Amino acid sequence: MQKFGGTSVGSVDRIRNVAKRAVSAHARGDQVVVVVSAMSGETNRLLGLAREIVPVPDARELDVIASTGEQVTSALLALAIQSEGGKARSFLGHQVRILTDGAFTKARIRSIDDERLRKALAEGYIAVVAGFQGADDEGNITTLGRGGSDTSAVAVAAALKADVCEIYTDVDGVYTTDPNICPSARKISKISYEEMLELASLGAKVLQIRSVEIAMRHQVAVHVRSSFSDAEGTWVVAEDKGLEEVSVAGVAYDRGDACVQILGIDDKPGVAAELFGVIADNNVSVDMIVQSATPGERSELTFTMAKTDLERAKPIIEETAQRLGSKSIVYDTEVTKVSIVGLGMRSHAGIAAKMFRLLAGERINILAISTSEIKVSCLIPAKYTELAVRVLHDGFGLDVAKT
Amino acid sequence: MQKFGGTSVGSVDRIRNVAKRAVSAHARGDQVVVVVSAMSGETNRLLGLAREIVPVPDARELDVIASTGEQVTSALLALAIQSEGGKARSFLGHQVRILTDGAFTKARIRSIDDERLRKALAEGYIAVVAGFQGADDEGNITTLGRGGSDTSAVAVAAALKADVCEIYTDVDGVYTTDPNICPSARKISKISYEEMLELASLGAKVLQIRSVEIAMRHQVAVHVRSSFSDAEGTWVVAEDKGLEEVSVAGVAYDRGDACVQILGIDDKPGVAAELFGVIADNNVSVDMIVQSATPGERSELTFTMAKTDLERAKPIIEETAQRLGSKSIVYDTEVTKVSIVGLGMRSHAGIAAKMFRLLAGERINILAISTSEIKVSCLIPAKYTELAVRVLHDGFGLDVAKT
Repeated sequence: MQKFGGTSVGSVDRIRNVAKRAVSAHARGDQVVVVVSAMSGETNRLLGLAREIVPVPDARELDVIASTGEQVTSALLALAIQSEGGKARSFLGHQVRILTDGAFTKARIRSIDDERLRKALAEGYIAVVAGFQGADDEGNITTLGRGGSDTSAVAVAAALKADVCEIYTDVDGVYTTDPNICPSARKISKISYEEMLELASLGAKVLQIRSVEIAMRHQVAVHVRSSFSDAEGTWVVAEDKGLEEVSVAGVAYDRGDACVQILGIDDKPGVAAELFGVIADNNVSVDMIVQSATPGERSELTFTMAKTDLERAKPIIEETAQRLGSKSIVYDTEVTKVSIVGLGMRSHAGIAAKMFRLLAGERINILAISTSEIKVSCLIPAKYTELAVRVLHDGFGLDVAKT
Repeated sequence: MQKFGGTSVGSVDRIRNVAKRAVSAHARGDQVVVVVSAMSGETNRLLGLAREIVPVPDARELDVIASTGEQVTSALLALAIQSEGGKARSFLGHQVRILTDGAFTKARIRSIDDERLRKALAEGYIAVVAGFQGADDEGNITTLGRGGSDTSAVAVAAALKADVCEIYTDVDGVYTTDPNICPSARKISKISYEEMLELASLGAKVLQIRSVEIAMRHQVAVHVRSSFSDAEGTWVVAEDKGLEEVSVAGVAYDRGDACVQILGIDDKPGVAAELFGVIADNNVSVDMIVQSATPGERSELTFTMAKTDLERAKPIIEETAQRLGSKSIVYDTEVTKVSIVGLGMRSHAGIAAKMFRLLAGERINILAISTSEIKVSCLIPAKYTELAVRVLHDGFGLDVAKT
């Protein structure tokens, strides 16, 4: 199983390179399925056309339009494989019955009927599957959201019980943190599903979160690697496959959140429940939550949410805050969530404390904290983003190779 | 039922105009189905991409690529209708189960399951159907050949028993001949299926032949009209619907044929059968055939075929001609077939003779003749094309309005 992203199939020449890779894998005796994205820029061009017609297009029709990008690439790659002397057929989402729910533009895969693919593979074809797309149970075309081709690839690999799902991309693997802001970032050679899932959730963009969830559930070995070289990339595997126990595996950051502070709320039970109930009813997800209450005084509630939801959520927040007795709300969009992730936190004590100390050493103020079994996240002023990432990365020894 | 060609949906503004037309038809109380082509130029762009990969692309993959043009237009039009305040949904060929045979790039429709369309119409939707495409019984995407959206429209109209199938195009109807070479050509207000079928077969490009066949078989009233005005166009209807009996309804011409002359063949039975048997075995269609034999002398065989098949057919023709004793073959690609078409020929004698007289009056040499119940075709040197069309058009009184 091989998956190629948009830049890897961004031109006729690059499609030919992908074809050569598939043909040589097939020549080594492997059965080969290739999942492709749209040519880079194509999805944006198509969505642009739709938005020329109407600024907020109907999601069902958007998916009909957007899915053509992968449709074209899949057939072009099949042609390229044929011209390299291989046998190939393209398959669309509905043709390999990638059945999804009906949530247009962000559908989730429910099942894959692998019969047609297995038949093509048994007949010696290289199967080229259009990524990013499926169909709901009424036969409507659906798409899986940005990065959805990763999820297509892992889901097809799971259905076919493939030995490996190779994700070819324009970087050569998963890094300990973003090399653009931290020069000492290193490529990780192996990482667990759990850590990858946290890193992806916390801002690392190399894999779609959903694809890691599926890989973890079905134990698909994922190999993230460069489409422009033959070098080994990063293996995303189960925890027990010879992973070294490092305390921290990577540092992630996310600039996408806004911080909301509601001051002077009546200090009585059920206040938080009421506020977050109303917010959830409006389909807004809240992330970090901090409630500070000194007994007998008015309390304060701080939480984060996606910046893109903020304008929509403001009226709801303000109306509810007023009812709860608050006179003042502070919005702050100049914040960043920095996180450290590592399985080793389960057994190593003091990781969180060390993180706070490292940040304090640079006089970086922590606005909110949230933790899970294998990560610690701190909300900090956005201007310190790069500094915080570098000090945490090197402070936890990620700049030094472990193997 | 409305169908819009590529120039009618060639830009966002034009798509908006089409949407307005559909919405106002719906507001008048009609159930509306719109069939669309790809935006003009889009199909060529897509086929160009495929040919960049490989000069002669696999037909199955070509159809996967080419069908995206109509897919995008159908969803864009659905969005445009929504933004005009209408309810609309797009449907692809496989979603309305336009079942075809498996002849990629030139598939023929076998059946349409109208259930999903009827349901959408009953719920008040304007249904927008992607033209040109279907799916075979294995679910592979197929296309219906150039002009195939006409066929999609008429076939869907037949399945739904629509009152009328309006074909919106960039001309305002069917003309007595090509107005570009004959200034006195007039728009025909009504024409029979049979005549339209002959005109389309003989070179008139306004409707795909197959669409007229389906309209005739299912008695679908077809209205060919301009997408840029509200003027009445040409009705294509059954013979008995108040058509005036004119001797000649139109003049067509076709520059696409080549003439092959095989000289000095042994004059014995079965020669023609052998030659044309071999040619047919190689999937080359032959059109006009003239055999001239003076008893006791060697005979001569003249026939026409599509220019595009000539290079492929030459070795076969030459090998067979040699076996039949011929020493000389003359190929002529500078020929045109001019034809007159009219139901009135059935009852009016002397139409063919008048045609030959009109051509002879201009000293135009006739190379071959073929006739059917309602048409006469003459093969002439290509340089006389325009002259022949004009002299026939006016000679049969087509320059004078009949109603």
